[in-house]
Amino acid sequence: MYPMDQRPIGVFDSGLGGLTVVKELVKLLPHENIVYFGDIGRVPYGTRGRAIIQKYAMQDIAFLLQKDVKMVIAACGTVSAILPKETVKSFTFPYSGVVKPAVQAACAATVTGRIGVIGTSATIKSGAYGKEIRAIRPDAVVIGNACPLFVPLVENGFIGPDNQVTQLVARQYLAPILENKVDTLILGCTHYPIIKRIIGEIVGEDITLIDPGKETARHAAALLQSQGLLSDRKAPGECAYYVSDTADIFEQTASIFLQTDSVTGHIEQVDLDSLQPTV
Amino acid sequence: MYPMDQRPIGVFDSGLGGLTVVKELVKLLPHENIVYFGDIGRVPYGTRGRAIIQKYAMQDIAFLLQKDVKMVIAACGTVSAILPKETVKSFTFPYSGVVKPAVQAACAATVTGRIGVIGTSATIKSGAYGKEIRAIRPDAVVIGNACPLFVPLVENGFIGPDNQVTQLVARQYLAPILENKVDTLILGCTHYPIIKRIIGEIVGEDITLIDPGKETARHAAALLQSQGLLSDRKAPGECAYYVSDTADIFEQTASIFLQTDSVTGHIEQVDLDSLQPTV
Repeated sequence: MYPMDQRPIGVFDSGLGGLTVVKELVKLLPHENIVYFGDIGRVPYGTRGRAIIQKYAMQDIAFLLQKDVKMVIAACGTVSAILPKETVKSFTFPYSGVVKPAVQAACAATVTGRIGVIGTSATIKSGAYGKEIRAIRPDAVVIGNACPLFVPLVENGFIGPDNQVTQLVARQYLAPILENKVDTLILGCTHYPIIKRIIGEIVGEDITLIDPGKETARHAAALLQSQGLLSDRKAPGECAYYVSDTADIFEQTASIFLQTDSVTGHIEQVDLDSLQPTV
Repeated sequence: MYPMDQRPIGVFDSGLGGLTVVKELVKLLPHENIVYFGDIGRVPYGTRGRAIIQKYAMQDIAFLLQKDVKMVIAACGTVSAILPKETVKSFTFPYSGVVKPAVQAACAATVTGRIGVIGTSATIKSGAYGKEIRAIRPDAVVIGNACPLFVPLVENGFIGPDNQVTQLVARQYLAPILENKVDTLILGCTHYPIIKRIIGEIVGEDITLIDPGKETARHAAALLQSQGLLSDRKAPGECAYYVSDTADIFEQTASIFLQTDSVTGHIEQVDLDSLQPTV
C-alpha cells in the first residue's frame, strides 16, 4: 500500500488566473486541501523582464513551502515558461508548471505537427513551448503569438461570448495563427480559457484547443498518485487563499476564474515584505 | 534677486505614463535637469489597493530624494489621488501631484460646472478629483468613470486615431460621461492624452479636454519660479531615467510617451530591494 500525505497542495500564480487550476484540482481531487498564493500586489508578470519574474516566482514558492505543502504547482504560464530548467531540477519537492502538461496534450492531439501557442509577451519571447514541443516531436512547426491584451480584457470582465471588443482583439491576435494552418492551439496563459468560446469561434472546430489549467491538474493528480502522496481524507478538502493585496480585490475577480458565485475558504492578505527572497 | 538651484527636478510614476509630464517640463524648462523614476517592475498601480499604492509611492519618493532632487512630482494620477493629505502636508520638499493642477484648469474652463473625470479604478474610487473640484466650486457636478483598459491599450500600441478596438472601448467608457452632459473632461491618468484624438472625436468639440500632464508641468514651473528654485544653467538640461525592471522594456515603451523616435539620456535599472521602505 502507498503511504498517504495529508498536507495541502500548493498552487501559485502572478494573480488569480491560476484559480482555473484550483477549479480543476477540486474536481479531480475533491478530498485534497489546497493552499493558493496569488501575487495580486505585483501582477502582471507577463510583461516584465526575466530576472524580475524569476525573483518574484522564487518568493512565491518560498511562501508556499512555509505553508508545508506537499507539492508546488506554478499555475502561471509566464513563470512556467521563464523558470530555468536547472532551477526546477534543484527543487527538492514535487513541482509542476503548466508548460509540460500542455505540451504533452498538444503533441498527443496534433496530426499535422503544426501547433499554435498564444501567451503573454514574456512566455512567447521565452520560446519555452517551442523547445518542449520539439523535445517530443522534433519535426513540429510551432507558431507563437503574444496576446498581451487578453489578460486585462478578462480581468475587466470583457468575457461574454458576444463581447465585441474581445472578438475584435482576438481576431487580430489569432490571424497569424490561422494563416499558418495549425491543427492544435495551446491557450498558454491561465486567463485564456475564460474566453475559450470567443477563441474557438474564430479558429473554428477543426483546431483543437489545449487548456493548460486542465492538463496541469490532471498531471499533478497523476504525479501525486504515483508518488503515494494523495490524502485519504474522507471529508471534502478545504482551500485557503493568500494574496499580496487586499482581499476585496481577490473577491471581486476570483469568481471569474473559479466560475462560482461566491468563494468559500480562508482568504488572507500577506505582507509583501514578509516574502523571503529565495527558496 | 532670487536664489538659484541647480539640482534636478524629480518625477516618478508607476510606469512610463509620467514621461508625458517630462516631455512638457522639457518644453517649458529646457535648462533643467530631470531625474525620472518609473516603477515598471510593479506597474500598474491603478488596479491595486490603497495601502499598497501608498507604500510603493513612498518608496518611489525616497528614491528620488536620494538623488538630491529639489522637487518631487508624482506624475501618476493614481498616486496623486491616493496619497493622504496629511502625508503630503508632512513633506519637507516642494511636491506636486497631478490632481490639483488638473482640477484648477478644469474649474477655470467649465461654464456649466458639470465636469467629467476618467481615470484608473483606484483614482475614481478615491473620489479625489471630486473633492478637489468641490473645494473650489462647491456647486460643481462631477461625473467619474473608471477606464481600466485604456492603460494596457496605450501600452500595447493601440493608439492610432483609427484604432477600432480603442474606439469601441472608449465609446463604452465615455457613454455615462456624455449622458451627463459635462462641458469639461479631465483625462485623469497620464496615459490618456496619448489617445486624446480618439476621446476628442467621441465627446465632440464642445467638451474641453484637460491634460493633467501639461497642467502639472505648468504648475511645477510656476512653483519653482516663485520659490526661486529654477536653475540658471545655460546649456540644455539632461534627463536621467531610473526604472525597476530592465532598460529594454523602458526603451520599447518610452517613445510612446516622450513622442520621440529614440530616448536620449542616462537609463539605469534600480534593484527593487534597494528601495527604502519610507521617505
